[in-house]
Amino acid sequence: MVRPVSVSHGGDLAEARHLAGGKAVLDLSTGINPHAYPATVPLDAMTGLPQSEMLAGCLAAAREAYRVPASAAIAAAPGTQAILQWLPRLFSARRVAVVGPTYGEHAATWRRCAEVVEVPDLAAAEGADVAVVVTPNNPDGRRTPAAEIAAFAAATGARVIVDEAFGDLDPAATAAGRPGTLVLKSFGKFYGLAGLRLGFAIGDAADIATLADALGPWAVSGPALAVGRAALADAAWAAAMRRRLAEERIALDGALAAAGLAVVGGTDLFRLVETDQAAAWHHRLAERGIWTRRFTEAPDRLRFGLPGAALPRLAQSLLATRAALGV
Amino acid sequence: MVRPVSVSHGGDLAEARHLAGGKAVLDLSTGINPHAYPATVPLDAMTGLPQSEMLAGCLAAAREAYRVPASAAIAAAPGTQAILQWLPRLFSARRVAVVGPTYGEHAATWRRCAEVVEVPDLAAAEGADVAVVVTPNNPDGRRTPAAEIAAFAAATGARVIVDEAFGDLDPAATAAGRPGTLVLKSFGKFYGLAGLRLGFAIGDAADIATLADALGPWAVSGPALAVGRAALADAAWAAAMRRRLAEERIALDGALAAAGLAVVGGTDLFRLVETDQAAAWHHRLAERGIWTRRFTEAPDRLRFGLPGAALPRLAQSLLATRAALGV
Repeated sequence: MVRPVSVSHGGDLAEARHLAGGKAVLDLSTGINPHAYPATVPLDAMTGLPQSEMLAGCLAAAREAYRVPASAAIAAAPGTQAILQWLPRLFSARRVAVVGPTYGEHAATWRRCAEVVEVPDLAAAEGADVAVVVTPNNPDGRRTPAAEIAAFAAATGARVIVDEAFGDLDPAATAAGRPGTLVLKSFGKFYGLAGLRLGFAIGDAADIATLADALGPWAVSGPALAVGRAALADAAWAAAMRRRLAEERIALDGALAAAGLAVVGGTDLFRLVETDQAAAWHHRLAERGIWTRRFTEAPDRLRFGLPGAALPRLAQSLLATRAALGV
Repeated sequence: MVRPVSVSHGGDLAEARHLAGGKAVLDLSTGINPHAYPATVPLDAMTGLPQSEMLAGCLAAAREAYRVPASAAIAAAPGTQAILQWLPRLFSARRVAVVGPTYGEHAATWRRCAEVVEVPDLAAAEGADVAVVVTPNNPDGRRTPAAEIAAFAAATGARVIVDEAFGDLDPAATAAGRPGTLVLKSFGKFYGLAGLRLGFAIGDAADIATLADALGPWAVSGPALAVGRAALADAAWAAAMRRRLAEERIALDGALAAAGLAVVGGTDLFRLVETDQAAAWHHRLAERGIWTRRFTEAPDRLRFGLPGAALPRLAQSLLATRAALGV
């Protein structure tokens, strides 16, 4: 029996709606692309059990999009979180090192079965059976090069979990197929469809077979397989979206700078700012219906997702909040 | 590390299409309602992470539809199979008794962690830590009354997994809330939306908390929560559908009887026939594009799902096959 562990997340809007007092909430608390892939769910993806050929088609498209070498295996899950839930049960470890601060669920899930330490970088993870690195990292955007990951795995013999949830922004940087790694991919963030629940694990054949066996048959819904296949095969959409997100990120940085907020990191899907007034910024913006992400363990940080078409509203609210705070 | 176990299932159509040689395949190999609930997936159910209030709304609708007493807890999963995958890891057992023959995944999943025996009825499950009973049973339709299940749990102290995957046909018969039970509900069968992946577990608060904690946050997709909530709250649709399925079951029995096939069990969503020519029937029907369910462990049995609007085609094919077989 394990103790439930609670991790705080962005994206749940009950508190945001309360603070907004009736205003429409602009949710910037996640790193989910506001420009969703134009998904259409065929009815027969919902009625019948997901067919093995639908799964195979989705996995083939994922192999292309994620540049998975033929030597590596791949499995699909109903969201990367479902994979995180299983990993500590499938791969025994006594000591787990998580390169952080980072996405809180890695440490939380491993803590049920192992001793977990947070380390500042991969080099400091030596001695761990399992090392977890998120690249680009959430929330600061730090990259850990695939070659460095591979060298660490080879030198230490540790299994390295590489969370590339935001890796679609730079697919060539992937560690997929590097010996000793288990690479995780989240479909929902770059494609703006987090509600579909679709994630992937890429690794050696034995690890992936163990994971797929634990997830069981029909693990992924028909809608996720159908939409995932279409979106992952659409290289033109992905290339255009990367350019668009890069432009919108520059515009967001401009709006943040105009309000005196210094960006200290991030990716093209979210920006991290540091200010000793982070709590006040968060609260004042929430009252204006703009919901950002705070970090209890780093009270001077605030994360902003891309606002999409709502950039003017955000920019205006930032300036008004700056004036109200007198900073 | 566990050995992958392969269980054969209905519903995967690659072989069916091959045998049909280009004809459209009528899939009768599952017990999924051919008259799907008219589902519409709102776009915002796909874009954002599933909200906790969406989950709460779906669970509240499930409590009503499944007649769950307030004393019992309930959790949602991406399909009942996802729950089966977790149970053996969460609830330790040395000896598991499965009332069978029945749906193969129960024995297969428990066999990874425990000694599993198949028993003819609950009474024969005495001495097991965990007993599994499917009611109504698949494929023979046998019912095990809730009072009998409760008495067994009280007398033996065993945890009883009650799979009510086809329980929507007679919701008053549920064992939900009976002490010592963990009741499983499959949304996709009665509502004809198996591809959505939605299932529920109902039990005492501690068991359900353990399961929900293992499944983790955002376990169920936004489309499944949105459609599930609407469908489970639609009592009028369910009542009308029960009447319709009962009528269509009578019509199917008539078509089977006209072809000399004796129905030995089933529910209003599938019929089980016994014939020593089951293999020949299966193959000849497959060549006509009609895909039925065989059972390797019971070679004289054949299961037929409801054909919906395709009843005339089925009836004609049954008569033609009977003539061809000379029976």
